[in-house]
Amino acid sequence: MTDIFAKRLSPVMQTMTGFGPRPLYQAVEARDGEALVEGRRVVMTACNDYLGLSGDPRVAVAAAAAVKRYGTSCSGSRLIGGTLPLHEELERRVAAFLGREAAIVTTTGCQANLALTPLFGRGDVVFSDMANHASLVDAVRAGWADSRRYRHCDMRHLERQLAGAGADAAKVIITDGLFSVEGDLCRLPEIADLARRHGSRLVVDGAHDIGLMGAGGRGVAEHFGLMDAVDLYTGTFSKCFGSIGGFVAGPAEVIHFLRYTSRSVIFTASMPPASVAAALAALEITVAEPERRTRAFEVARQVKSGLGALGFDTGASATPIVPVHIGPTELCGRMWQEVLDEGVFTSVVVTPAVPESQALIRLSLQAVHTDDHINRILDAFAAAGRRLGLIPAAPPAVPSQLAGAVKTPAGAR
Amino acid sequence: MTDIFAKRLSPVMQTMTGFGPRPLYQAVEARDGEALVEGRRVVMTACNDYLGLSGDPRVAVAAAAAVKRYGTSCSGSRLIGGTLPLHEELERRVAAFLGREAAIVTTTGCQANLALTPLFGRGDVVFSDMANHASLVDAVRAGWADSRRYRHCDMRHLERQLAGAGADAAKVIITDGLFSVEGDLCRLPEIADLARRHGSRLVVDGAHDIGLMGAGGRGVAEHFGLMDAVDLYTGTFSKCFGSIGGFVAGPAEVIHFLRYTSRSVIFTASMPPASVAAALAALEITVAEPERRTRAFEVARQVKSGLGALGFDTGASATPIVPVHIGPTELCGRMWQEVLDEGVFTSVVVTPAVPESQALIRLSLQAVHTDDHINRILDAFAAAGRRLGLIPAAPPAVPSQLAGAVKTPAGAR
Repeated sequence: MTDIFAKRLSPVMQTMTGFGPRPLYQAVEARDGEALVEGRRVVMTACNDYLGLSGDPRVAVAAAAAVKRYGTSCSGSRLIGGTLPLHEELERRVAAFLGREAAIVTTTGCQANLALTPLFGRGDVVFSDMANHASLVDAVRAGWADSRRYRHCDMRHLERQLAGAGADAAKVIITDGLFSVEGDLCRLPEIADLARRHGSRLVVDGAHDIGLMGAGGRGVAEHFGLMDAVDLYTGTFSKCFGSIGGFVAGPAEVIHFLRYTSRSVIFTASMPPASVAAALAALEITVAEPERRTRAFEVARQVKSGLGALGFDTGASATPIVPVHIGPTELCGRMWQEVLDEGVFTSVVVTPAVPESQALIRLSLQAVHTDDHINRILDAFAAAGRRLGLIPAAPPAVPSQLAGAVKTPAGAR
Repeated sequence: MTDIFAKRLSPVMQTMTGFGPRPLYQAVEARDGEALVEGRRVVMTACNDYLGLSGDPRVAVAAAAAVKRYGTSCSGSRLIGGTLPLHEELERRVAAFLGREAAIVTTTGCQANLALTPLFGRGDVVFSDMANHASLVDAVRAGWADSRRYRHCDMRHLERQLAGAGADAAKVIITDGLFSVEGDLCRLPEIADLARRHGSRLVVDGAHDIGLMGAGGRGVAEHFGLMDAVDLYTGTFSKCFGSIGGFVAGPAEVIHFLRYTSRSVIFTASMPPASVAAALAALEITVAEPERRTRAFEVARQVKSGLGALGFDTGASATPIVPVHIGPTELCGRMWQEVLDEGVFTSVVVTPAVPESQALIRLSLQAVHTDDHINRILDAFAAAGRRLGLIPAAPPAVPSQLAGAVKTPAGAR
């Protein structure tokens, strides 16, 4: 007899020893751009709270009031017993915010993407960017359509696939708006044009960009002036909106269809009252305070520019997600630890998400990061990067008329 | 060109017109065994808050305190940036409660079941009860194992399938503990025996029974005295525990494996602080107040006995989930409406979940239902059932020495 546990566990456990458990599953208490990690207060750059709303007192007050009024759970599916008037209000507000006919809210953002599955039927063709989020990949895999994945942001590859799919097939293109590993955007103008020319529907997952991008926070489509070129938006409340849960927004009849066919909607307990109220409050603030978006981008600009001046490769990011390319996984783990020792908690992207030799540290910058936080981030990367030989040594200090020449400390090479 | 929206929507929309939108997606505000529905206060029997903890002030205080301390979201995955010490505490408590080495908590209960997928590899065989929850079905479908489904609680069918699978295949049996449509239990003693004899692992989804069944609330396994026969438990905080989220509990190395391989864990934002705190508080109450379990069963016993005396068929339920078999879907919809008009909000199970002619109304009874609620439920079913001819007319009133003979009103036949 073969034991299913022993059979499955051994190969994975072997591949995991290289990187070690840290930084994965490290417990932190994050708030206002900082985090408490094992008793130390550090700068937090590993959460996606771009606008800093998960710690906003107005959002917290709304959540606490909802707990008091509605309790801590709906204890049922949206379908029956688990719909509050508050869920319906959030759906109306999301639809109005994005200028769509209707929206449905789901219990997690992943479940919003999984809710798309009933659209992917036999004979249909789904075109997906290879860097799309795992939940979009799973949504397509759970359906019955023919799945074609095009190379990340490769418009020629997408065009060839569209052309090869046959004129009669029902088609849909699915892409992240803002890709979370590199912080780059989908090439929406070209994708929208291809969709139009090939009679394809277009679905954009705005998990990272809705709330953050565009003058009104409506995401990459607003950023590119193409709100109406997108047929369906999906998104989450767990990043810009300081809560949990997700949504799909689009034509009323499509949303109605998903309400009665999406297993990730029907067979799951509904979004809890506190989370609905938090999302509602955050949505209001997102609209009312565009300066939060401006600040998040300004923080990112300064961090990128500072890291570049130090000699780090921060790739092509045009957003508050800033990758710092390190190289081998093991070196990335050491760099992560050194940067933490210097007082900054970051996240990592390692194999199998990227090739073994292309591990990177990722920073998510937030509107609530202060100028002091920016300096501490740059100082930490400078010190850690020099210790590991990733960047050149510090230039000799400029002799000062006032203080006289200062010797570079030996440890800095 | 074929439009994917038009192609998918039309057949579903046609089949949905028969039942109409109600009672589906009806907005309610539920609490303490009652609900506000379109301004009317009614008895609530359509949520799975068996112990009444979603409205417990101690649970609410814990949730509000967590919002104040930690904010409204972790804005990140458990894997990195989204783990609070509070998540780790809940995992330790769940593991200790169930007497397991370890547990992992997930953002929804469905995602706990989906987290099992990495266990289902090529060449393995998974045996599932045909009435298992949709999220277990999806977890198996997303994996690569050979899937064999046995007829609901049919032990001979399971045994034949186990015997036919080949001695060398790695095997796992997966079953709901308490089935949510009929309120019946899995036949755990026989399943455990079959698992042992055929060298199969055993996974039990305790979504409806953990918290509710067994002297200590540890679910069907405790009820049957078979805690150690189960290899992995999954469960949810959205029913007995008045919150949202789920868990998998079992051997430390299996839980460790799932932490690093389960897409529904890695690629989703973590359970929000308020929900973790609510689950912790509810777990404590569940252990400390066994009288809540006793009361939920007593309410169910009285309702079943009363409905039976009226002439309704309540099937084989042995739990606080009580099915009331009605028949054709359309009649079930009328009965649901009549019962609501009489002041009781119920849920329905209709096609495609059951055959068209076997629609049923389902009652979930709660510890917080009062004797008055029980009477109102029975009165509502009596009046509605008589109006629709589902049960016999009321017996003639017994002549009383004090008041004289009372004529049965004409409307009651």
